[in-house]
Amino acid sequence: MIILGIDPGIAIMGYGVIEYIGNRYRTITYNSILTPAHTPDAERLKSIYSQLRNIIYEYKPDVCAIEKLYYNNNAKTVISVAQGRGVAMLAAANEGLKVYEYTPLQIKQALTGYGRADKKQMQQMTKMILGLDKVPKPDDTADALAVAICHSHYANYNLLNEKLEEYK
Amino acid sequence: MIILGIDPGIAIMGYGVIEYIGNRYRTITYNSILTPAHTPDAERLKSIYSQLRNIIYEYKPDVCAIEKLYYNNNAKTVISVAQGRGVAMLAAANEGLKVYEYTPLQIKQALTGYGRADKKQMQQMTKMILGLDKVPKPDDTADALAVAICHSHYANYNLLNEKLEEYK
Repeated sequence: MIILGIDPGIAIMGYGVIEYIGNRYRTITYNSILTPAHTPDAERLKSIYSQLRNIIYEYKPDVCAIEKLYYNNNAKTVISVAQGRGVAMLAAANEGLKVYEYTPLQIKQALTGYGRADKKQMQQMTKMILGLDKVPKPDDTADALAVAICHSHYANYNLLNEKLEEYK
Repeated sequence: MIILGIDPGIAIMGYGVIEYIGNRYRTITYNSILTPAHTPDAERLKSIYSQLRNIIYEYKPDVCAIEKLYYNNNAKTVISVAQGRGVAMLAAANEGLKVYEYTPLQIKQALTGYGRADKKQMQQMTKMILGLDKVPKPDDTADALAVAICHSHYANYNLLNEKLEEYK
């Protein structure tokens, strides 16, 4: 299963594509999409959508995992981040990917077994699990890989739930 | 000039298309896009995007005007509304429309000359300006027409500013 992980944003949107087969990981690509400040929101959203779509075309992920957003994260930027997040989910859905959303707590617990792990612990775990030489930069990229790993932990559980739904 | 006005939302997104020529208005269409509750956000966003794009194909607006969102509007729903708003701006931008954003204050002042006009006053003015038989329902649809009218008031002013930018 190839997973596209996304850390939502408007100025910086982190993404990471990993493959998870038989409890092993292969890191396919990771980076951040940047949009210039002082540019109208509509143009920034257009740029994010088009870049994410190209990433999906190129790496053909099977599913998308994205971090949930809470309005107390940062009141000043939450609206533009949510707009970027909406466009990211749309890019995935328009290319036929199912989108799974995970809370920061779920991501922390999936990676470290501990819901209050700090950023540094999370980044070290991400690096270790994926066997990377160093922690991916910027933080948004590392966060995107973390949500992709989180999805791999939930994947069987999600599949089971979906099958159960079908039988209802 | 044909203006697409949008009142952003996720469960209900109001839209209105009006033509403004020589200080006269022609109402082309107005309605609301509804998305079913208990549906994943990604699917709702996909539905909004696809319906808005069809509206743009059909009525060929020249510009898009959309209401600005503030995080104190409604803390509980602001994130999903902002996600819907991002997708609406994207739909317009992807079809080559320039997107103009107006605050509730600007819209109220443009329609009634009074920044603290209430919803009923705004709806009566919208009905009167466009020569409609009755106030459009639901409120989201009336709000979308109001932001389109607001843009017509600002249009010459915006054009002047853009020309000035070009000469800089």
